Amino acid sequence: MLTIGLFGFGCVGQGLWDVIHRTHGLRSRIARIFVKDKHKARPLPQSAFTFERHDILNDGSINVVVELIDDAEAAFEIVSAAMRNGKAVVTANKKMVATRFRELLELQRESQQPLLYEASTGGSIPIIRNLEEYYDNDLLSGVEGIVNGTTNYILSKLSVNNEANYYDVLHDAQRLGFAESDPTLDVDAWDAAYKTVVISAHAFGAVIHPDDVVRRGIATITPFDVAVARSHGCDIKLLSRTSLHNNKLIAWALPTFVPHTDMLAHIENETNAIRLHGAFSDDQLLIGKGAGAHPTASAVLSDIAALKYGYRYEYKKLFQNDIPQFNTDISTRVYIRGDESHLKSIDFIDVEIDHKANNNRYLIGRTSMRALAESEPFISSECFIAIV
Amino acid sequence: MLTIGLFGFGCVGQGLWDVIHRTHGLRSRIARIFVKDKHKARPLPQSAFTFERHDILNDGSINVVVELIDDAEAAFEIVSAAMRNGKAVVTANKKMVATRFRELLELQRESQQPLLYEASTGGSIPIIRNLEEYYDNDLLSGVEGIVNGTTNYILSKLSVNNEANYYDVLHDAQRLGFAESDPTLDVDAWDAAYKTVVISAHAFGAVIHPDDVVRRGIATITPFDVAVARSHGCDIKLLSRTSLHNNKLIAWALPTFVPHTDMLAHIENETNAIRLHGAFSDDQLLIGKGAGAHPTASAVLSDIAALKYGYRYEYKKLFQNDIPQFNTDISTRVYIRGDESHLKSIDFIDVEIDHKANNNRYLIGRTSMRALAESEPFISSECFIAIV
Repeated sequence: MLTIGLFGFGCVGQGLWDVIHRTHGLRSRIARIFVKDKHKARPLPQSAFTFERHDILNDGSINVVVELIDDAEAAFEIVSAAMRNGKAVVTANKKMVATRFRELLELQRESQQPLLYEASTGGSIPIIRNLEEYYDNDLLSGVEGIVNGTTNYILSKLSVNNEANYYDVLHDAQRLGFAESDPTLDVDAWDAAYKTVVISAHAFGAVIHPDDVVRRGIATITPFDVAVARSHGCDIKLLSRTSLHNNKLIAWALPTFVPHTDMLAHIENETNAIRLHGAFSDDQLLIGKGAGAHPTASAVLSDIAALKYGYRYEYKKLFQNDIPQFNTDISTRVYIRGDESHLKSIDFIDVEIDHKANNNRYLIGRTSMRALAESEPFISSECFIAIV
Repeated sequence: MLTIGLFGFGCVGQGLWDVIHRTHGLRSRIARIFVKDKHKARPLPQSAFTFERHDILNDGSINVVVELIDDAEAAFEIVSAAMRNGKAVVTANKKMVATRFRELLELQRESQQPLLYEASTGGSIPIIRNLEEYYDNDLLSGVEGIVNGTTNYILSKLSVNNEANYYDVLHDAQRLGFAESDPTLDVDAWDAAYKTVVISAHAFGAVIHPDDVVRRGIATITPFDVAVARSHGCDIKLLSRTSLHNNKLIAWALPTFVPHTDMLAHIENETNAIRLHGAFSDDQLLIGKGAGAHPTASAVLSDIAALKYGYRYEYKKLFQNDIPQFNTDISTRVYIRGDESHLKSIDFIDVEIDHKANNNRYLIGRTSMRALAESEPFISSECFIAIV
C-alpha cells in the first residue's frame, strides 16, 4: 500500500487527485496535501491539507512524496528531506531535476530511495522510462523533438494565420491557459533546455548543465519569418536536440525550420513529439499530449505505480566508461533576420542567401554552433534565429 | 554473462548477430546457432552452427534461447523444451505467441523462466513493454494501429498511383523483399490478427484466440476502392484495433478508411504506428520501423538486455478481477464494394450511400460487426470491405 504525501495542489496536483480516485488496481491513497496559501478556496475539506511541510516529511506512515510545486529551490529542499527520511519521491519539476542532476544522483545513492520524474519531460510521453529500459543497447545517435507545449501552441497559431502577431497569439494562449502569466521560461526556451538536459542524461549518460544547452527562444518571431520558412517548404518549430557527433555531445533548444515532409512539422498546439535515432531500430517517433492536468498526472501516476514493484532508474549509461564530452564545435545552417549591424557580426563559413528588402534583411548560411552562440545577434533580443 | 543459443539464421537472425557484435555494454555472446538446411551457404564458419536442436537445448552453459524460426509449431516445441530446461527465452514468433498464449503463460508459471516477445508485435516499437510497464493504471480504452509492414507498403503504393493494380504492386513488394513469396499471412490479415491478440492481452488482460479477431485482408482491393476512399478524404489502411465498449472487448484487423487529418493516414510503406487511447494520458502515438533485419533485431536485443536485470512480463491486467469479455455486438460503419447479390445479403441498419455505376456498385452504411463478420460478402473473396 502506497501512502502519499502530496506537495502542491495546482492544476497537476488536482489532476492527480482525480486520476488516483478514478483508477482501480493501484492500491494507494493521498494522506495529506501541503499547500502554501491558507486562504484559497479548494475543492476538498480543510482537513486534507496542511501548511506545514513537516506534517508530511516527518510522518512515518507516508512512504511516497509527490512533489508538484513550482519553485525549484523549495522543491529541492522538500525532495532532499523526503528522501533522507526514507521516502520514495515522484516529481514533475524539470527545472529542479535539470539544475540539480548530480546532487539528485548522489541523494539517490545515499538514501537508497528511488526518485522518479517521468512527468518532467515530454508530458505524457514515457520518454525517460523508454530511454532507461528499452534503448539501453541500441546505440542511439540522437534524440530530438518538440518538448514545450506553450511555444508549440504559439508557433502552430502563427503558422495557420499569416497576419498573426506573436504578442496577440501569446495573449490568447495566456487567456486559454496554454501559457503562464510570466511566459519567460517557455518562450525563452528554458523549459525546453531543462528537458534537453534530462534527455541527455538518460539517452547518453551525459550530465550537462542547462547553461550548456545552446538555447534561444521564439519571442522575436514575426510573420515575415514564418513566410520565409514556408517559402522553403518548412514550418518553424522550437526543437530540442541532443545528439552525438564523433562521440561528442551537442545539445540545443532552438527555433528550427522543419520541412513539411517531416512529421514533426505536423505536430500541432500543445502536443509533444520526440524522435529517437537508433543505429538498429531506425527512427522512432513518440507523440503525446505535452501539457494539461490529466496527461501530466498520468505520467506521475505511472511513476507511482512503478514504485509498487520497486522500480528505480539505473542510470546505466552514466556508469559506462565512454560518457561523451560536451562540445559545440560543429557547423550548422542557420537563418538570421535582423538589421545590418547584427548580421555583419556573425562569422559565416558561407552564405547561401542574402536577402535585402525595405524592412527586412535575412541571411541563410553555415556557421559554427559555437560562433553562433557567442555572437552578438544570438544575444540580442531583436533578431530572429532558426536552425535550417 | 548471457550465453545465447540462437534458433534460425534468416534475415532477423543475421541482423541479431550483427547487432550483438556491434553493440557494447551488453555482455552476451551467441554460442551456437541452430539451422535446418545443411547445404545453404552462410557468412559464418560451419562450427558456429548445429543441425541438432538438442545441441542447444541440452547445453547447460546456454542460459538464453532466442527463437527466430518461421514454423510456429516447431517454435513452440523449442520454446517449451528450452524453458523446461531452465533457459530464458526471447522470441519474435507472433503466430506462436498468439495461438499458444495460455499454454505459454502456464509454461512461464511452471518453469519460472521469463519469455519475452517484444519483436513479435509492432517491429521496433516497444509496445508490449510500454503496455506492461507504463500504461498499467491508465484506464486504456483502446489500442489501434498499423502493425503489418507488408500490407502498409502495398496500400501506400496503391494510394500514390491511381492506376496501380494490387497484383503488380504485390509482385514489386515481393521482388524488393517487402512481401513473402507466399503473402497469405500478411495480405489476409492473419499477421495483424496475431498482433491484435498479443496487444489485447497486454492492454486489457483479455486472452482471445486469433480466430476471435474479426479479420479481412486487402487482396480484393481495386483502384476504384482507393478512389472512393479519396473522395471521402481518406486513405485505406489495414488497421488493427482492440478496444473496450461498455466493458466488452472488440478486436479486429480490417481495411479502414482513415481520414487525411489523422496521422495514421500518413504512415507510409513498411512503417508501423500504434495509438493508445488513455483516459488520462489522452492519445499517444508510437511510430517506428515495422520490418527489416535491424529494427526487428533491435527489439530482440532489447529483450535480451532486459533479461540481464531479471525482467519478465507480470501480466498484471490478466490477474485483475474485471477481465473484459469478448464481444462483436457493436454497430459499425462500413464500405462494401461487390456485386448486387453480395451486397443484398448484408443486414444493414441503415444505408447512407448506395452507388451504382456500370461496373461497380458499393454501399456505405451501418451494420453490426457480428452481422458483418458472418455475412456472405465478408466470407466471399470478391468483395472489398472497409471500416469507415
